[in-house]
Amino acid sequence: MALSDLIAVERNEEGIAAVLQTLRDAFGERFQTGHSIREQHAHTTTYLPNQMPDGVVFPESIEEVQQVVRACAAHRVPLIPFGTGTSLEGHVNAPGGGISLDTSRMNRILAVNAEDLDCTVEPGVTREDLNRHLRDTGLFFPIDPGANASLGGMAATRASGTNAVRYGTMRESVIALTAVMADGEVVTTASRAKKSAAGYDLTRLLVGSEGTLGVITSLTLRLHGIPQAISGGVCPFPTLEAACQAVIATIQMGIPVARIELVNALQMKAINLHSKLDYPESPCLFLEFHGSEAGVAEQADLFGMIAEEQGGGPFLWTSVAEERSKLWKARHDAYWASFTLRPGAKGLSTDVCVPISRLAECVAESEVDIAENGLVAPIVGHAGDGNFHTLVLMDPDDPAEIARVEGFVARLNMRAIAMGGTCTGEHGIGQGKAGFLRRELGHGVDIMRAIKQALDPQGILNPGKTITG
Amino acid sequence: MALSDLIAVERNEEGIAAVLQTLRDAFGERFQTGHSIREQHAHTTTYLPNQMPDGVVFPESIEEVQQVVRACAAHRVPLIPFGTGTSLEGHVNAPGGGISLDTSRMNRILAVNAEDLDCTVEPGVTREDLNRHLRDTGLFFPIDPGANASLGGMAATRASGTNAVRYGTMRESVIALTAVMADGEVVTTASRAKKSAAGYDLTRLLVGSEGTLGVITSLTLRLHGIPQAISGGVCPFPTLEAACQAVIATIQMGIPVARIELVNALQMKAINLHSKLDYPESPCLFLEFHGSEAGVAEQADLFGMIAEEQGGGPFLWTSVAEERSKLWKARHDAYWASFTLRPGAKGLSTDVCVPISRLAECVAESEVDIAENGLVAPIVGHAGDGNFHTLVLMDPDDPAEIARVEGFVARLNMRAIAMGGTCTGEHGIGQGKAGFLRRELGHGVDIMRAIKQALDPQGILNPGKTITG
Repeated sequence: MALSDLIAVERNEEGIAAVLQTLRDAFGERFQTGHSIREQHAHTTTYLPNQMPDGVVFPESIEEVQQVVRACAAHRVPLIPFGTGTSLEGHVNAPGGGISLDTSRMNRILAVNAEDLDCTVEPGVTREDLNRHLRDTGLFFPIDPGANASLGGMAATRASGTNAVRYGTMRESVIALTAVMADGEVVTTASRAKKSAAGYDLTRLLVGSEGTLGVITSLTLRLHGIPQAISGGVCPFPTLEAACQAVIATIQMGIPVARIELVNALQMKAINLHSKLDYPESPCLFLEFHGSEAGVAEQADLFGMIAEEQGGGPFLWTSVAEERSKLWKARHDAYWASFTLRPGAKGLSTDVCVPISRLAECVAESEVDIAENGLVAPIVGHAGDGNFHTLVLMDPDDPAEIARVEGFVARLNMRAIAMGGTCTGEHGIGQGKAGFLRRELGHGVDIMRAIKQALDPQGILNPGKTITG
Repeated sequence: MALSDLIAVERNEEGIAAVLQTLRDAFGERFQTGHSIREQHAHTTTYLPNQMPDGVVFPESIEEVQQVVRACAAHRVPLIPFGTGTSLEGHVNAPGGGISLDTSRMNRILAVNAEDLDCTVEPGVTREDLNRHLRDTGLFFPIDPGANASLGGMAATRASGTNAVRYGTMRESVIALTAVMADGEVVTTASRAKKSAAGYDLTRLLVGSEGTLGVITSLTLRLHGIPQAISGGVCPFPTLEAACQAVIATIQMGIPVARIELVNALQMKAINLHSKLDYPESPCLFLEFHGSEAGVAEQADLFGMIAEEQGGGPFLWTSVAEERSKLWKARHDAYWASFTLRPGAKGLSTDVCVPISRLAECVAESEVDIAENGLVAPIVGHAGDGNFHTLVLMDPDDPAEIARVEGFVARLNMRAIAMGGTCTGEHGIGQGKAGFLRRELGHGVDIMRAIKQALDPQGILNPGKTITG
């Protein structure tokens, strides 16, 4: 289970040549084969090697997506759907070459149904685009994975982020999809009804399928009313254990926190260094509350009492928008801040998620493991969901260090699985975690493989990903 | 698309004889073939004919479920999972005979993880059993489809009910499952983590698969804290339109109603007759609010203002438990109350669900359709979700009336589909709605069929259901 054990996919040179010609003829300038654009459309983040596609196509309609899929199907050539390329798990790499299908020109907002709290968008619309468009409606789309990702990519990877604890993940946010399947046919997964018992849940099958079952061509998404009041704050704790106990009590009391983020002492230090702040350098929770003016005050007071019971505090909170923005900017910059701890290093982000009763134990054991192995790896977590990331800062040219990192990542993933958790809460399987998926779900992977085989018998959609273990 | 066009499944007499012998030898008294027990294990509700299995087996463990599935697989004999038999769509009928697998002896609560707000149960545990067991923990399981159904059956049919508007459906409530697949192998669909990006969503694939993909053998379910305060009330409106507008405003303002149920004038009349009450016989909303003492009062006051704006009211609400119980008993008895409108009739329940912006229109057109065709069909709806039921009271021995009913049901389903909705919000496809599923999702049905073929190539799991269209 070495990090670098990526699945090889054999190149079909003849087929690739034929598809390149077909797409060049059909798409003209909207088909590109230059080195730098191909490099941009392969994996560009963290530690994984860049495996370039042979060409990048920019369709503008479902019919054009069908045309691309059919060309690839006719010649058994890999097709890799591409949103914004912000995946951390090599989802957009092209291990056997082939075509990157860039959805950025499919960026229309097709409908906003304010009364129904839903909208329908093309896959290339980013979450920030959508929220800008919604600004005057009093509605917003909450799912926030950090990056300004495309909504198609977020659906394909079942993305979530800091406010999933209240608003759910893409699993709960996608009402229906259209997708072009491996044979070039278009499928609509569901109606726009809020609930349905109409056959197998094809929507949830495609959400999280990482481009291996179909190319998402439109999404109907659940929206929410912008809360009347928002407040937020930071609360330090003497220990990780105390912070996690405060999280459990908050969730169990049913306080509808919008965000409750755990940041460990090392990560707080990095945030202070990077953002020139002076937060306490002990484990902290970052919180946000949504509701009425009275409601957010009540939530903050209740949380303050919980924190105090755990020896934490003071919990300082504010409803002032600028102060909140500063706080969340610091939290969102945690990824970049981490690099101040080891300039020049490459970062590898882990993504385990455990039942919250095991969160403190899992984080604490991992901190010990990090220390024992001489690694630099600050921790942030979506604590309300039991999901946390360590960003391991490493020298990619030091094989001994890489081996230590690989050992740590394997132990971390297996620790989470042993605690009833998963190796990935939100980043997905991609290229790096197929072996752990097998350890986690066993025979379930064979069921996934049977579905993949049934829906994409030639294996042209994003090969070498997700269910290779 | 006649109601009576059920899919025929050919009987495999030789295989059935062999399986009967195998199960008799293996299960002794826990395998039954008497006429009345077989009749009870086929469809017993509403208008569909009763199609008996050849035998009923009562396994007590996953291993015994595997044994039954393997026997049926070896001889290509249908196997129909059975919970409590409260389905309205013929899910438990045995059109080609075979074995009914009754889960009622798999009724252990395996774990309650209060800190994680989850529990793991065997499939034969009913929702009332579970809530009785949870009583002292301060937690509850909210999904309430009316009947005291088994949790395995509720998952298999993606059940919901009156409080789905706040707590979601079985889709949102099932964290993970184990199931025995058609080849007798056990699959675990997910870890106990609250969120996951670990491969295809097998949990959601099995939820709503109506026993056609696997036999559910355990479920991990999301629980909720019992609210500190609960209040409820009934609010009359001058028109259906006004009641629906009040629903839309309530949802759009983000008032976290736990229940918001629409009852039309005819159904109110039936409720008054049946329960000897004197509610206004105009369209009404039944509401329930969960929260803190102050919270439920605030919600009720806000709703009262919304109702008034729509010309509705007075909205009388109460926090007194006995009064609330009386109110919700009247609402839950609506099904039985309907029969007072036409004693001796058979009832057929429809189940469309539309975007709530179209709810008033869909209900109003359906009322006109009912009147124009001389039918008796009161209406209740889970209005916050856009889901409503008409209970068509008919004489099953009058072919002309049956034809009128069939026409009405077909128009109703197609009306909902045309409005962006579904033919089934919560009752499922079962035997009766396969043709409408095809109208609703088109090529999607072929994708479902490919999945079914991949996972159950012999077609032994609940044949003649769900994806026959």
